[in-house]
Amino acid sequence: MNSFGRIFRVSIYGESHGPSLGIIVDGCPSGILLEEKDLEPDIQRRNPPLEGTTPRKEDDRPQLLSGVYGGKTTGSPIHMMFANTNIDSGVYEAFKDVPRPGHADYTARKKFGDFHDTRGGGHFSGRLTLGIVAAGVVAKKMIAPISIQARLTEAGGSTHIQEAIKRAQKAKNSIGGIVEGKAVGVPVGLGEPFFDSVESVLSHILFSIPAIKGVEFGSGFRSVQMTGEEHNDRIIDKDGTTESNHSGGINGGITNGNPLLFRVAVKPTASIPQMQRTINLKTGQLTDLEIQGRHDTCIALRMPVIVEAATAIVLADLMLLEQRTPRIEPSS
Amino acid sequence: MNSFGRIFRVSIYGESHGPSLGIIVDGCPSGILLEEKDLEPDIQRRNPPLEGTTPRKEDDRPQLLSGVYGGKTTGSPIHMMFANTNIDSGVYEAFKDVPRPGHADYTARKKFGDFHDTRGGGHFSGRLTLGIVAAGVVAKKMIAPISIQARLTEAGGSTHIQEAIKRAQKAKNSIGGIVEGKAVGVPVGLGEPFFDSVESVLSHILFSIPAIKGVEFGSGFRSVQMTGEEHNDRIIDKDGTTESNHSGGINGGITNGNPLLFRVAVKPTASIPQMQRTINLKTGQLTDLEIQGRHDTCIALRMPVIVEAATAIVLADLMLLEQRTPRIEPSS
Amino acid sequence: MNSFGRIFRVSIYGESHGPSLGIIVDGCPSGILLEEKDLEPDIQRRNPPLEGTTPRKEDDRPQLLSGVYGGKTTGSPIHMMFANTNIDSGVYEAFKDVPRPGHADYTARKKFGDFHDTRGGGHFSGRLTLGIVAAGVVAKKMIAPISIQARLTEAGGSTHIQEAIKRAQKAKNSIGGIVEGKAVGVPVGLGEPFFDSVESVLSHILFSIPAIKGVEFGSGFRSVQMTGEEHNDRIIDKDGTTESNHSGGINGGITNGNPLLFRVAVKPTASIPQMQRTINLKTGQLTDLEIQGRHDTCIALRMPVIVEAATAIVLADLMLLEQRTPRIEPSS
Amino acid sequence: MNSFGRIFRVSIYGESHGPSLGIIVDGCPSGILLEEKDLEPDIQRRNPPLEGTTPRKEDDRPQLLSGVYGGKTTGSPIHMMFANTNIDSGVYEAFKDVPRPGHADYTARKKFGDFHDTRGGGHFSGRLTLGIVAAGVVAKKMIAPISIQARLTEAGGSTHIQEAIKRAQKAKNSIGGIVEGKAVGVPVGLGEPFFDSVESVLSHILFSIPAIKGVEFGSGFRSVQMTGEEHNDRIIDKDGTTESNHSGGINGGITNGNPLLFRVAVKPTASIPQMQRTINLKTGQLTDLEIQGRHDTCIALRMPVIVEAATAIVLADLMLLEQRTPRIEPSS
Repeated sequence: MNSFGRIFRVSIYGESHGPSLGIIVDGCPSGILLEEKDLEPDIQRRNPPLEGTTPRKEDDRPQLLSGVYGGKTTGSPIHMMFANTNIDSGVYEAFKDVPRPGHADYTARKKFGDFHDTRGGGHFSGRLTLGIVAAGVVAKKMIAPISIQARLTEAGGSTHIQEAIKRAQKAKNSIGGIVEGKAVGVPVGLGEPFFDSVESVLSHILFSIPAIKGVEFGSGFRSVQMTGEEHNDRIIDKDGTTESNHSGGINGGITNGNPLLFRVAVKPTASIPQMQRTINLKTGQLTDLEIQGRHDTCIALRMPVIVEAATAIVLADLMLLEQRTPRIEPSS
Repeated sequence: MNSFGRIFRVSIYGESHGPSLGIIVDGCPSGILLEEKDLEPDIQRRNPPLEGTTPRKEDDRPQLLSGVYGGKTTGSPIHMMFANTNIDSGVYEAFKDVPRPGHADYTARKKFGDFHDTRGGGHFSGRLTLGIVAAGVVAKKMIAPISIQARLTEAGGSTHIQEAIKRAQKAKNSIGGIVEGKAVGVPVGLGEPFFDSVESVLSHILFSIPAIKGVEFGSGFRSVQMTGEEHNDRIIDKDGTTESNHSGGINGGITNGNPLLFRVAVKPTASIPQMQRTINLKTGQLTDLEIQGRHDTCIALRMPVIVEAATAIVLADLMLLEQRTPRIEPSS
Repeated sequence: MNSFGRIFRVSIYGESHGPSLGIIVDGCPSGILLEEKDLEPDIQRRNPPLEGTTPRKEDDRPQLLSGVYGGKTTGSPIHMMFANTNIDSGVYEAFKDVPRPGHADYTARKKFGDFHDTRGGGHFSGRLTLGIVAAGVVAKKMIAPISIQARLTEAGGSTHIQEAIKRAQKAKNSIGGIVEGKAVGVPVGLGEPFFDSVESVLSHILFSIPAIKGVEFGSGFRSVQMTGEEHNDRIIDKDGTTESNHSGGINGGITNGNPLLFRVAVKPTASIPQMQRTINLKTGQLTDLEIQGRHDTCIALRMPVIVEAATAIVLADLMLLEQRTPRIEPSS
Repeated sequence: MNSFGRIFRVSIYGESHGPSLGIIVDGCPSGILLEEKDLEPDIQRRNPPLEGTTPRKEDDRPQLLSGVYGGKTTGSPIHMMFANTNIDSGVYEAFKDVPRPGHADYTARKKFGDFHDTRGGGHFSGRLTLGIVAAGVVAKKMIAPISIQARLTEAGGSTHIQEAIKRAQKAKNSIGGIVEGKAVGVPVGLGEPFFDSVESVLSHILFSIPAIKGVEFGSGFRSVQMTGEEHNDRIIDKDGTTESNHSGGINGGITNGNPLLFRVAVKPTASIPQMQRTINLKTGQLTDLEIQGRHDTCIALRMPVIVEAATAIVLADLMLLEQRTPRIEPSS
């Protein structure tokens, strides 16, 4: 279950406060330049030096432990690991019995029994997205010159993001946001009508990123207020260029060569520095809970690079799948 | 690619105007009552007798061709087939060179070469959802007493659906809509944090249904305007019941026992009875195209039963996956 | 479970005496010439007009029901179906309680409960290999000019096959045999060290063919009596040609360009026209059982074309997987 | 490709002389006692203190880096890593151009280009079976009280194993062997007729172990000299006990509750301390090659624990798959 992809396949492991976390990338072609320092810029972007993300120091130095030789990928699985040096075990054990609202404490307890590692969210932690970002760097190299960019376009319902975050911090509260993703230079023909449409595969990985609760392509939810005449993108060039891009670059589940466009909804951070009402599962009594520590006011700030990585992973896989098809064109 | 699911696994095949289409359901437990007539009510619901769906007669009689013996499933693959009796080959061949706006003609041509069966949309046709509906009937039986209901809540931006459709018909245009899905009685613990969250797996199949361009869970895109305090669902009972349900019944990718809630955006039908501008791929000249025949004004009208089927297929698979886990509770 | 392959993927369904059986081939490239009559020669080979196979008339006419348009594959799933016209329900129901020795009656009863379709072996029937043979025809076309040949080299421990069969028939008994497979023209580089070695993937499908109980590659079991010096195949040409072929054309799980060689052991037919001792599962009493009807004296006679088909399916998949790898050769 | 299993899923990574190698076990239930020291006995067995295995010191200390908390599995992926401290890079680079007979040098060069890590065999090294042994320990705990035992029954064609090895060492040669595997206490009903028969799945992983070139179940290749009357195992008890076990405990691909029996052929070690003829791929000239260092005279000595681990991994997966099946027995 902790794997994603058919040919370019990532497998994630680890916990927030266990010894390590990381990712294995299988199916990457050989001969791609890859060093540990190549991973750093995107890993840094995951920790933006902005208000609204936690100042807690995380040890995010990647270790490249297999699949690379002489600075190039070998074609064998690439293992990228992050050691967890900042381990705090004390705080979290209580959440097994007194689940934090909006968190996975209750569901993890029910699914995995008393054995779940609750520390820092354990395997559910957003810290596991470090592996996704690292795999995304490999994928981006593989799919070059496709260019992927994601950005936070609003937070807390406002496009004045820093102000919205400051307001939320003052109110000891948290906010969500919208991240827009765009990929340019995507070849025509990636994806399948059933069941691996580009929307299907991309939404699959996006919805596994903690806090993402909505995904739309092209005009998405706005398309329900449009007519067919308005929504249909007119093809204006033999290369498939369309006048508008309401379809988000995808028809029938398959890329059409126009920019791939999508938006994701990031819910507000569940951990807020307020007293919250919840239940004690052992006693059955309602109780008040205050979550200690520093937490992101707006987790959406970290999302752009994660969303880019997820997109790159999907495109790498779809490209390897598509190259397989030796279409035989008719002779006449 | 035409398969979905890990244990309860469906494989779709067929074209709109070829000899047949259908679905194979693998991994269904033995001993479930199943007859051809059980399939009919949901298949009828896919053809609602409302304005806005095409009056074209489709032969939708299901044939149950394997995996059932003595009126019960045997545990072997269940094959459900639909013969295509209403085959019209004449109209569609032209769309290879003159792609219809908003359709998959261009992408199919590029992906599959000159060999794609364009008739009625071929393998891209919405008619293939017949198989999904049939598999959904099997899945619903398997997951009983879980109850799944989907309904069209708005069309063309209006909650007066029939009026909106009539307006669109008069205007020789088409409209989209919103379908809300709800599953009640879902056990706690289905789904995984990475990469098979309930949102991931459900969105995967939903986005393979033609015309769906957005999926959100719980408050979804509205959650970005909420604070954490507002969005966090307070647990008010030992059984996990929450006061609100902004998370849509899912925390950390795992069902929490509250109703599973989601919404999908259905774009307006691409085929409209108007002259549309497109390009001739052979000549490179812009040209006008008029799509003949009768087409749904609002394809979203057909969606509720398809969305229900997709949800049932996902829940059947997640339930079989979860039952596997022999959790060993501590003795003390 | 009834699917095999990663890109070129076959899904089997059906029972021996149910309405139909067949196979779906997904992932086949578009543009390959394919008609129903192309399937017939190999399907005929599965019914060799020799003593030792049952004279029971089977209706083996294939129906090509999707994925082909204008005589060529479209890139969509190819559905090939065989109707079962010769249905006999009477004989087999008893085997649920009185399992035939050497058959799957007991295991099927335990696995699927009382719901298993026992008629003609149900889903366990060798008749399901019709689908494999049909899929093999498609695969052979795809991998041309690779040439695959399998032949029965011995039966009942003798290389005088027809005589051995006659002896067994007289003795109201049955015999097994050895089938040797060979593929020539296989490109270098197919397969993976872990876990998808050519031996792994090919043995996987071979061992799913009823009655195959042993598989060896190259010198196989004979290699345990050889020294390393004897077994090591010396490379004598830059194209990888080796002097001997003890490895069967595979090193480190990967094809080396020399002929792919393997042998399979086919056990004697379980159904024999003798009284046999077994147990009545209901009463717990030992009992004697006589299996009615005509059965193959030597099921191995049918195997060559099935083994060829299995090999072609594997090679088609491995070739599509390998073509994906855009190795970047160094510039210098 | 480097993954195996459907629910209990192992993913292998690493190279012989790179920074690390290891395995990730996904799908293991929570609550199983697991510590690093539990891994040691089987890891020691992989290095038997016998003549015939290399005296080279390997650092085989396992590190348990995720998926365990408080000495028990959590249900998250279990990462077990082995650091490579004994790295020797000098010797192997030459084998890219001058491939060792019987090794994967040629096929790796052709598949992965110039980028393959040849040191110690790289990702093809038998050292990667350390991960399989470690995962086997986890699997054995999960499937208890099933008992699995494998043993070397002959080497170099002789049952006097130590003498055969001494002879081979004196002759500067190597030998292969036969390993017999047996699993007792296997429940009835594991495996599937198509395509995941027990034979299929078990042979799949066995054939990915370097040097295994033959696999047979029950009487295997000897069954081709038996009649059906001899081969058919008579059921003599309601619990499915059979008088003989020529089928190796499997009928129709499904376990029948009798001991699971199989044999594997291990070819002689390819590295021998003799001058060998091969070709220089760059010059096209035949050349003589002497492989330096100490190498196992009989790699088959290490195999029993690896074969046990592979068997345990398969049974763990099949048991989790089978537990999923909520068969509905008829009420009457």
